[in-house]
Amino acid sequence: MRMRSAERMLHKEVRTKADGRRLILYGREPVTADGAPSPSPDRIDSAAHFRWHPFRGEWVAYAAHRQHRTFLPPPDYNPLAPTADPAQPTEVPAGNYDVAVFENRFPTMHPEASEAPASLTPTRPALGVCEVVVYTQDPSTSLGALPVDHIDVVLEALADRYRELGGRPDIAYVMPFENRGVEVGVTLHHPHGQLYAFPFIPPVAAVELGRQADYYRDHGAGLLQAHIDAELRDGRRMLFAGNEAVGFVPSFARYAYEAWIAPRRAAPSLAALAAGERRDVARALKTVLLKYDGLWNKPMPYVMVFHQAPTDGKAHPEAHLHIECYPAYRMPGRLKYLAGSELGAGVFTSDTLPEAKAADLQAVQVDLGEGVSGVEGVGTG
Amino acid sequence: MRMRSAERMLHKEVRTKADGRRLILYGREPVTADGAPSPSPDRIDSAAHFRWHPFRGEWVAYAAHRQHRTFLPPPDYNPLAPTADPAQPTEVPAGNYDVAVFENRFPTMHPEASEAPASLTPTRPALGVCEVVVYTQDPSTSLGALPVDHIDVVLEALADRYRELGGRPDIAYVMPFENRGVEVGVTLHHPHGQLYAFPFIPPVAAVELGRQADYYRDHGAGLLQAHIDAELRDGRRMLFAGNEAVGFVPSFARYAYEAWIAPRRAAPSLAALAAGERRDVARALKTVLLKYDGLWNKPMPYVMVFHQAPTDGKAHPEAHLHIECYPAYRMPGRLKYLAGSELGAGVFTSDTLPEAKAADLQAVQVDLGEGVSGVEGVGTG
Repeated sequence: MRMRSAERMLHKEVRTKADGRRLILYGREPVTADGAPSPSPDRIDSAAHFRWHPFRGEWVAYAAHRQHRTFLPPPDYNPLAPTADPAQPTEVPAGNYDVAVFENRFPTMHPEASEAPASLTPTRPALGVCEVVVYTQDPSTSLGALPVDHIDVVLEALADRYRELGGRPDIAYVMPFENRGVEVGVTLHHPHGQLYAFPFIPPVAAVELGRQADYYRDHGAGLLQAHIDAELRDGRRMLFAGNEAVGFVPSFARYAYEAWIAPRRAAPSLAALAAGERRDVARALKTVLLKYDGLWNKPMPYVMVFHQAPTDGKAHPEAHLHIECYPAYRMPGRLKYLAGSELGAGVFTSDTLPEAKAADLQAVQVDLGEGVSGVEGVGTG
Repeated sequence: MRMRSAERMLHKEVRTKADGRRLILYGREPVTADGAPSPSPDRIDSAAHFRWHPFRGEWVAYAAHRQHRTFLPPPDYNPLAPTADPAQPTEVPAGNYDVAVFENRFPTMHPEASEAPASLTPTRPALGVCEVVVYTQDPSTSLGALPVDHIDVVLEALADRYRELGGRPDIAYVMPFENRGVEVGVTLHHPHGQLYAFPFIPPVAAVELGRQADYYRDHGAGLLQAHIDAELRDGRRMLFAGNEAVGFVPSFARYAYEAWIAPRRAAPSLAALAAGERRDVARALKTVLLKYDGLWNKPMPYVMVFHQAPTDGKAHPEAHLHIECYPAYRMPGRLKYLAGSELGAGVFTSDTLPEAKAADLQAVQVDLGEGVSGVEGVGTG
């Protein structure tokens, strides 16, 4: 299958692994690759289900996985690297492609989740999709270090996932995200993200969309668009001000180095971006991520989450695609712990101001590798 | 001042530190102590303010503290231990008392918070109170290891704080909590908790109270009371079933070893407990905390939060005092990380079931030190 864009074509190849899981390869060049490897031919049993938390009004996911066959990988085994030795298959093949997506072997949600057992509160099968998004075949790089062209492929692949998964009648919300670094629990360093396709709009997205819908109703315009305009006028927290996309530390940042990336136009999802917009989002994203890593000259651990319009079949004029990045550190060597105030009250506390932290990031010079200077425009002096 | 209870009197002594902060000493015996020490005579400047997060609809607290005088404590300096050497004052005096409460030297909220600077979204002064609650003079014990009598004093002191701080017109919510262990960011091992008195009902409490209010309106009874009844009937997750209080892993636990402690009766706050109820809550709390520490024979790090009725002047028949405990580990040596799903979506994921984790805790035998056996009653066989 080939997907046309205003700029260049994206090639897509769908395969099925021996254990039944889906593998999708994306590339700017025609995709060629050796089969669809899997670490094990056995499908993992999943007794995944949701239980209702009646005090918080949210679903909690339980997924107790049972593995039929013991799998003891060698110490240097990287399941996200292209398979080099067919006797030790990884999750992705050797070959010619840029980005690989496959169904998670240990999913929290599953398209064929079994009946949910009864509990004291309502339960439901954990129907949904969990995919792994391998950004590149190179195990030693990072999303931010990839060329803008390649980040653009990642974003276009995620746009394709949004269209395909969001098109399912049982999927209400498609959320790409990345957990990066041991500080947020990730031991696999190969550059990759994940994607959860939920059967409901998850609580954090629901809260944000609710506020955006209120604003849209009252103003006939988008809350994020208004905030981006205000950030641009203020300028003190801007990290990237492109023609079509921006990156900034929001004035109400909860994490010290929190940054948001968004198209200027209120495009509801990655799939709604024009090619030029998507490319500028790639630039904004690359700028923010390179500034993170350049800040203390070491990879910054973070949680990064894409916010898009729900795919619940309803109109969402309030939605405006954006990426929220939550770096784990607040100072060199000082993690931000979520404790009583944050987890117990929902009140984030910071001993620094967003303006000061944005200035730290503004001072980090980055090279987008496009041979264009001054793209960042604002606040990098 | 002396406060009478059905059982025994609680003595209370209020003092003012050199830097103006309040110190309160509580004891079952008459309080005698040497003054009101302070690590420094200088008041810390606080430019604390809240900014409105328009997408989440919540306040974010910024408190950039400026210390006038450099304070370099010796390596073994414990600011929460009774002052032994007047040349090195701590936060609490030597003397005769059980529990000490003082205003935090580096508060997130402050009773005289200055004007809030303008920002892109609404701001307000961080008016409020942050107190430190020193559970005991003994630096080497823990809340759970204290005698039931002593835990009862801690709870009665917190009840007094609820009444006093909640009685202020500018305080809408009084939240005692404890962050325990380096895993949740606490480097001070002297047994202590904290107390935040907010000028608004914080988001997490507001969500829980909203659900409880819905239930109360529909059923004319409390949601937590109904859930406690259901947990008692089920029995598989009970950790303590006393005559007046219970401790259990909720069927919808978000953290592997999450436990809730509550009076059976829907008492809205610690201040509303009868002496016998409060003592049974102390037993339930001690049971849960000892089971945590006994599980792997090492102190379990946790975040523990008290949920009480707001003090906003409105009626809250839906409120039911309870304590929620979130242990940091999900397996020996395996922390529960909050990442994309939890922070980005608000969907907690667990690879274990509450029933299995409750069974782990039920298997830990604890001695309440009251010479009574079988108090736990349910599920300890």
